[in-house]
Amino acid sequence: MSTFHTTRRVEFRDTDAAGIMHFSAFFTKMEEAEHELLRSIGQSVYSRSKDGRLISWPRVAAECRYRGPAHFEDILDIAVHLERMGTSSVTFAFTFHRGDDLIAEGRITTVCCRLVEGSKPEPIPIPPEIREQLQRYLVVA
Amino acid sequence: MSTFHTTRRVEFRDTDAAGIMHFSAFFTKMEEAEHELLRSIGQSVYSRSKDGRLISWPRVAAECRYRGPAHFEDILDIAVHLERMGTSSVTFAFTFHRGDDLIAEGRITTVCCRLVEGSKPEPIPIPPEIREQLQRYLVVA
Amino acid sequence: MSTFHTTRRVEFRDTDAAGIMHFSAFFTKMEEAEHELLRSIGQSVYSRSKDGRLISWPRVAAECRYRGPAHFEDILDIAVHLERMGTSSVTFAFTFHRGDDLIAEGRITTVCCRLVEGSKPEPIPIPPEIREQLQRYLVVA
Amino acid sequence: MSTFHTTRRVEFRDTDAAGIMHFSAFFTKMEEAEHELLRSIGQSVYSRSKDGRLISWPRVAAECRYRGPAHFEDILDIAVHLERMGTSSVTFAFTFHRGDDLIAEGRITTVCCRLVEGSKPEPIPIPPEIREQLQRYLVVA
Repeated sequence: MSTFHTTRRVEFRDTDAAGIMHFSAFFTKMEEAEHELLRSIGQSVYSRSKDGRLISWPRVAAECRYRGPAHFEDILDIAVHLERMGTSSVTFAFTFHRGDDLIAEGRITTVCCRLVEGSKPEPIPIPPEIREQLQRYLVVA
Repeated sequence: MSTFHTTRRVEFRDTDAAGIMHFSAFFTKMEEAEHELLRSIGQSVYSRSKDGRLISWPRVAAECRYRGPAHFEDILDIAVHLERMGTSSVTFAFTFHRGDDLIAEGRITTVCCRLVEGSKPEPIPIPPEIREQLQRYLVVA
Repeated sequence: MSTFHTTRRVEFRDTDAAGIMHFSAFFTKMEEAEHELLRSIGQSVYSRSKDGRLISWPRVAAECRYRGPAHFEDILDIAVHLERMGTSSVTFAFTFHRGDDLIAEGRITTVCCRLVEGSKPEPIPIPPEIREQLQRYLVVA
Repeated sequence: MSTFHTTRRVEFRDTDAAGIMHFSAFFTKMEEAEHELLRSIGQSVYSRSKDGRLISWPRVAAECRYRGPAHFEDILDIAVHLERMGTSSVTFAFTFHRGDDLIAEGRITTVCCRLVEGSKPEPIPIPPEIREQLQRYLVVA
């Protein structure tokens, strides 16, 4: 099992009048890291399974715990792994560090859905070729 | 000619580490005011003309001049009028006041477009029934 | 025990390319509702306790569960109550409805801190006059 | 005269329900590019002049013209130069390209200010050491 790593700088728009990165900005950065992980395995938010179905991953839950403040221009290391992969759902776990300091820990749960024009997204089993690629980031208990 | 008025509070997420409303947040508030004006005349960002075409208004230009800072929880009065209405394009002009203080002045230019699935938005003359309703907010030179 | 209610419209900037309100936008709307609740009891994000200390409420945790999509121009009813009030910490619970449809449920945990220029926020017991006002929104188990 | 270059990917949160990058997101990306240029010459949004004064650059104007849509995951090349450098003010000019396609052109005007705790930012002449470093990005007419 390996962990996916990326970095993001705290941009000025990420900050608020308390002088620190706004708590909501951690969620967009988690999503950016998740999408970067997906691209690294040849997937995207919207992609096609081998059998031609249009796939997407709507979120069902998101959470974050804040351990310390991040400031403008800080560089944050974001580590991502899969905490759980069910039949259709995936839980990504994220940690944000600035150097050795833990800044935040978060989690996003998404469900693999088939998109059909004009219908609601329909949960489907994660296609085997995607499951195989995600496997490398899955924690082995 | 009349002016459309609405108000918006400066929310915490609108602020930045300088302790004031971020300059980009004026653009989203201008858009909110524009959409509120459109709703007030029975239109929306996406609406149908009388003859059934799906209409939208992509932006071609946006600008803002900043006259003074706005702070968290300030209530801003936003006044909107039409500075110009061409065959296809409309320029909305906005002013932001906090009480008597001018905070910012902005402008958004949009083009009336017909949306057709799978094609690029196609500029069309503003449908007469929409033109008539927008007229009331048009500055008479 | 009573519940605090407010409403927010889904603005265009709240949406994303999936055509629905972005999952991160629920967190800023939760914060807006929390601040509105605080204002309703004469408090703010920054306020002074009776004995003159400058008080603020940094977040330690935030979460949201998504039950259904919200679309541009939807009007969302946001209900807020206090799920728990400890010595220093408060957990606000939020539900988002569009009419009878549950759209999302969330939670933000904040800690009452004393702000002193140049130092880190220091957790303090919630001042009695603020505790008393928050009490009315606290769930009685 | 040289031009400063950076790139940004269109992240999912940058998009809106029209399926394209929201017009306001160009302003935050312009600011990110401006800050990156400042860092490249050893400056920041907040920095100290050689004689010890705390300097910042509040915006007085911002504008953008939209030439074509940007989509999720597009990589945008952002080019920045100084269009004008007055005694106190600087106008940055930006272009966004995706490959050879021009996506947008923008401009931000900022004023060099001295920050003194508890007072309003006071415009000052751009300190000579900063002026000299900015010079390399200034268009020579």
